[in-house]
Amino acid sequence: MRVVILGSAAGGGFPQWNCSCRNCGALRRGVFSGKARGQLQVAVGTQDRSWFLLNASPDLRAQIEAHPFLHPGDGPRQSPIAGVVLTSADLDQALGLLLLRELQPLQIYSTISIRGILRNDNSMFGMLHRVPKQAQWQDVVSGIEFGLASPSGAQSGIQCLPVSLGTHYPHYVPADRAAALNPNEALLGLVLQTEGSGRLGYFPAVPKLDDALLQQLGSLDVLLFDGTFWSDDELIQIQGGGQTARQMKHVPISSEQGSLRLLSGLSRPRKIFVHINNTNPMLDVSGPEYRQVRDAGWEVAEDGWHFEL
Amino acid sequence: MRVVILGSAAGGGFPQWNCSCRNCGALRRGVFSGKARGQLQVAVGTQDRSWFLLNASPDLRAQIEAHPFLHPGDGPRQSPIAGVVLTSADLDQALGLLLLRELQPLQIYSTISIRGILRNDNSMFGMLHRVPKQAQWQDVVSGIEFGLASPSGAQSGIQCLPVSLGTHYPHYVPADRAAALNPNEALLGLVLQTEGSGRLGYFPAVPKLDDALLQQLGSLDVLLFDGTFWSDDELIQIQGGGQTARQMKHVPISSEQGSLRLLSGLSRPRKIFVHINNTNPMLDVSGPEYRQVRDAGWEVAEDGWHFEL
Repeated sequence: MRVVILGSAAGGGFPQWNCSCRNCGALRRGVFSGKARGQLQVAVGTQDRSWFLLNASPDLRAQIEAHPFLHPGDGPRQSPIAGVVLTSADLDQALGLLLLRELQPLQIYSTISIRGILRNDNSMFGMLHRVPKQAQWQDVVSGIEFGLASPSGAQSGIQCLPVSLGTHYPHYVPADRAAALNPNEALLGLVLQTEGSGRLGYFPAVPKLDDALLQQLGSLDVLLFDGTFWSDDELIQIQGGGQTARQMKHVPISSEQGSLRLLSGLSRPRKIFVHINNTNPMLDVSGPEYRQVRDAGWEVAEDGWHFEL
Repeated sequence: MRVVILGSAAGGGFPQWNCSCRNCGALRRGVFSGKARGQLQVAVGTQDRSWFLLNASPDLRAQIEAHPFLHPGDGPRQSPIAGVVLTSADLDQALGLLLLRELQPLQIYSTISIRGILRNDNSMFGMLHRVPKQAQWQDVVSGIEFGLASPSGAQSGIQCLPVSLGTHYPHYVPADRAAALNPNEALLGLVLQTEGSGRLGYFPAVPKLDDALLQQLGSLDVLLFDGTFWSDDELIQIQGGGQTARQMKHVPISSEQGSLRLLSGLSRPRKIFVHINNTNPMLDVSGPEYRQVRDAGWEVAEDGWHFEL
């Protein structure tokens, strides 16, 4: 199984359009020790001409063009993108579906609740249903493994296990609507593998780390993990107000109850932070936070990284 | 009044992610005589730190970063983007609003019907209303001029006249919903000017050219006009099926009833084609179609063009 990280930043990307934090400001002035990043986008595949996207980023158009393996073949609508697996209805994870609207057959794997929010509550997603057999939605259920298949039905050989991680729907879902949805269908992590391959964990948004999840992560070979915020009050310090990381349903990296310490016993997987917010000080490779995560055995994802499992 | 063309292509951009037409294929192989283009995006302003977007493209994040005059000032949420004027609810014109969701105060000018489609039928737009005085929607009415103002109320000095151009709502709007909307609020052109400036016409989607519109266009100093399709059957020839340009509510450029001939008497404005589809042969600057439009006194917009009026 091949894995490509097309983008590695959290929603808004790095730099973010209206942000002048230390990171964004230094990057724009050309004095930042670190790289710009598009919004998180991962592609997995076993064959040259069949790829599956993990979520669909708002930067997807540029990300596809930057990677020739995702360019279309000859003839109309010959994109090698066969499908998308959604882990939430967050804009930075789902908006890119609307960039794939040009009559391309696509499998979209999501929970029933996420599908309901997108298809029923957002008429724009009708653009994925202009012709028969354009988007085909496949319901997934936490704890039940499924095979990733192309719209023609051809199996990729990739098995995907969804893992329910949280009960919180995005801000834009009205409270009464959210209350009527299945809370276990709000947010997923994914474990992907092929026969004989290693196990890839895709956990870009993790609200809390409990023992069951720790055990699951311990069985992985590569872990792509929530690297959104360094500290719980990161946005409050920069903006002078707002929510903590935990209120935004992200375990911060630092502190006694942060992911770096809680995952310090995880010896098996290669550990890579993804979904990194523009404000996160570990983006600065000359800084102490970057040194700390590297010394702890973690990597900080950059756009374009790829590996085999 | 300053005018910047941040992007010049139609929906999907050039190249388009799943297209291998002659243009897209040659561009990807590096043998195309012409430039790649982002999706149409125009910015207008009279002051350094206050700009208004005409529509909001899905490529807006990259377009902002590529243009330092749109970068934020020091401090949180100091973007110089003060507002957006919407001419339709098409995805390639409105989706970029969701990229401006990071708690930035913004004026959004649209017809009541376009606002209804976005705000009432698409819950995602709730992200523009997370805090008080984030997005402020201002209703506009065809034929009634209004002043572009920043969220603080400061006038830019730019006056904007909306002109109703069509009665057709986007594909994704269900037929019964569209039937309940005011047909004259579906699609606008804009005429913008400041006191003492020339008149800018922004007409990126024109379903038909009648005498009243021809007269209006004749009074302009710069015209940004629908350059989507060269010929009426352009997509059908490439895809082997689908809709004509006119069915998609775009006057094609060529033929007896095309825009090039119908607008041939237009002597006053500088005439620039924008919203150019990836399939349009005039993108090839070595081809006869490009030569024909240039000989007729038209220009073919490229990303990054800017001028003063």
